[in-house]
Amino acid sequence: MEFDLIALIKSKTTIDSSVQVGIGDDAAVINNSQNTQLVVSTDTLVEGVHFDQRATARQIGHKSLAVNLSDLAAMAAQPKWVTLNISLPTIDMEWIELFITGFLQLADKHQVNLVGGDTTTGPLSITVTVFGEVEKNQYLLRSGAKRNDLIAVTGEIGSAAYALKHPNTALDIFLHVPEPQLKISQQIKTFAHSCIDISDGLMADLGHICSQSKLSAKISLQQIPVNPLIKNHDPLWSELVLAGGDDYQLCFTFSADDLDKLPAGCTVIGQMGCGLGVKVFSNNQQMDFKQKGFVHFNNIN
Amino acid sequence: MEFDLIALIKSKTTIDSSVQVGIGDDAAVINNSQNTQLVVSTDTLVEGVHFDQRATARQIGHKSLAVNLSDLAAMAAQPKWVTLNISLPTIDMEWIELFITGFLQLADKHQVNLVGGDTTTGPLSITVTVFGEVEKNQYLLRSGAKRNDLIAVTGEIGSAAYALKHPNTALDIFLHVPEPQLKISQQIKTFAHSCIDISDGLMADLGHICSQSKLSAKISLQQIPVNPLIKNHDPLWSELVLAGGDDYQLCFTFSADDLDKLPAGCTVIGQMGCGLGVKVFSNNQQMDFKQKGFVHFNNIN
Repeated sequence: MEFDLIALIKSKTTIDSSVQVGIGDDAAVINNSQNTQLVVSTDTLVEGVHFDQRATARQIGHKSLAVNLSDLAAMAAQPKWVTLNISLPTIDMEWIELFITGFLQLADKHQVNLVGGDTTTGPLSITVTVFGEVEKNQYLLRSGAKRNDLIAVTGEIGSAAYALKHPNTALDIFLHVPEPQLKISQQIKTFAHSCIDISDGLMADLGHICSQSKLSAKISLQQIPVNPLIKNHDPLWSELVLAGGDDYQLCFTFSADDLDKLPAGCTVIGQMGCGLGVKVFSNNQQMDFKQKGFVHFNNIN
Repeated sequence: MEFDLIALIKSKTTIDSSVQVGIGDDAAVINNSQNTQLVVSTDTLVEGVHFDQRATARQIGHKSLAVNLSDLAAMAAQPKWVTLNISLPTIDMEWIELFITGFLQLADKHQVNLVGGDTTTGPLSITVTVFGEVEKNQYLLRSGAKRNDLIAVTGEIGSAAYALKHPNTALDIFLHVPEPQLKISQQIKTFAHSCIDISDGLMADLGHICSQSKLSAKISLQQIPVNPLIKNHDPLWSELVLAGGDDYQLCFTFSADDLDKLPAGCTVIGQMGCGLGVKVFSNNQQMDFKQKGFVHFNNIN
């Protein structure tokens, strides 16, 4: 049951000088930078739960890293290193090579070094642990929102949920090949007060900012950036936009005084206030919206 | 499908001041020490492959952390932080609480902070990623063995394999509740030249030291410390000792000049030489031993 995964990985990626000992010993040894803090996030993707049979091996490789990089983007951290654990029912070299290709292409794009991992027999499941750095105390939390902060999002919202519901459209790419918003997170980190990535749905994730900041949020449905395809083809588009998960865009808050700093690709959708919970207004009327996003099992970080 | 795992974890462990942001945001923020290097290892345990139905939830919790701490012991690193990913078919609160209890008791014993993780629905599978520190360049590798080094092991070898083959004996504990050899690894780090933990079997793991150090090893079967139960009750005891996995003892090499530094609980079993491969001698005769240890799927670090 052995194959030379290490050789395959080494042929497909380069490791920078921060990695003193990489894959091949009992553990990796890493030179972290001075005066930084370490930022760590981990996610498990299981077949049938986090990706379906339509997803290609290469897409699964990309997405399993992307969702973790997205967590580091939400913290405004620079990802630098990653470990990869794969459980596979059988050794399918073609599948593995495509998976690793998708994974490492995204890793190389963001200069993330694959430093270790583990492969085992078992039902298809992928765990990725990504770690990066921030300059001391230069990170964003869910809990930092201030009263009267403006609320903004990156990109368009609801595309992944649309693709899940309506396969084989131009929006498929947002479901299967999400792009972590690392560049924008570096642009907003100096002035944003709080940030989260939208993995469980806009209302659910903005709800986390509210509960952890002990504030409420008031957003306008019409201000949320949405791909026209969604509005034109799904009468229930507002549910996809408000409750759909898997977008991996960022939702963040900042002072209105800093509005001129908002980068291109970001859209103001509302404002933080007193109280608790997320209130959505459509044409000046508050929506009565029960479903608060896809409830995953439980993500403890 | 939600339950308050975070509250359960927080009730059962304490987090030290190195953890600036723990469980509950998109990622953890950690204050690593100055002038150290980061050491990272990760392992996945799958039901039916790495533990069987006889193992209790508490034992599985212990073992899933222990095997990772053992990798850090092999590097002579001090473990400090850990992330935990669990896939579970259904939410069984009793199982989870026992699992977490076993996991956190071992974590607390070694002052390891649980800083993040993920829980998902899926076939039972556990991935643990452990982070530790070494003072700059003060780590041990598989590749550091020198010609004429003595070879030593900690503890007794073959007990876990015996317990797997012969359930319900006094040796069960070595299979289900292995103790990572962190204390001894700190004692040997100043004089050992190479080190590995015995997870795949003595011959296989010593074989890694040989291949990565470009040397051979000559060991004496009679010198290997073995529990008397094994020799007395299994005619094939030498196979369990040489090829059995899961002991999580350390195998290391060092100069004969440093023999007086060898801590209690360590036993010299042989010597490194030129050439390649592991040669086993029994009563002055070289054994012809084909099976080179349990071949797991492939552990890439």
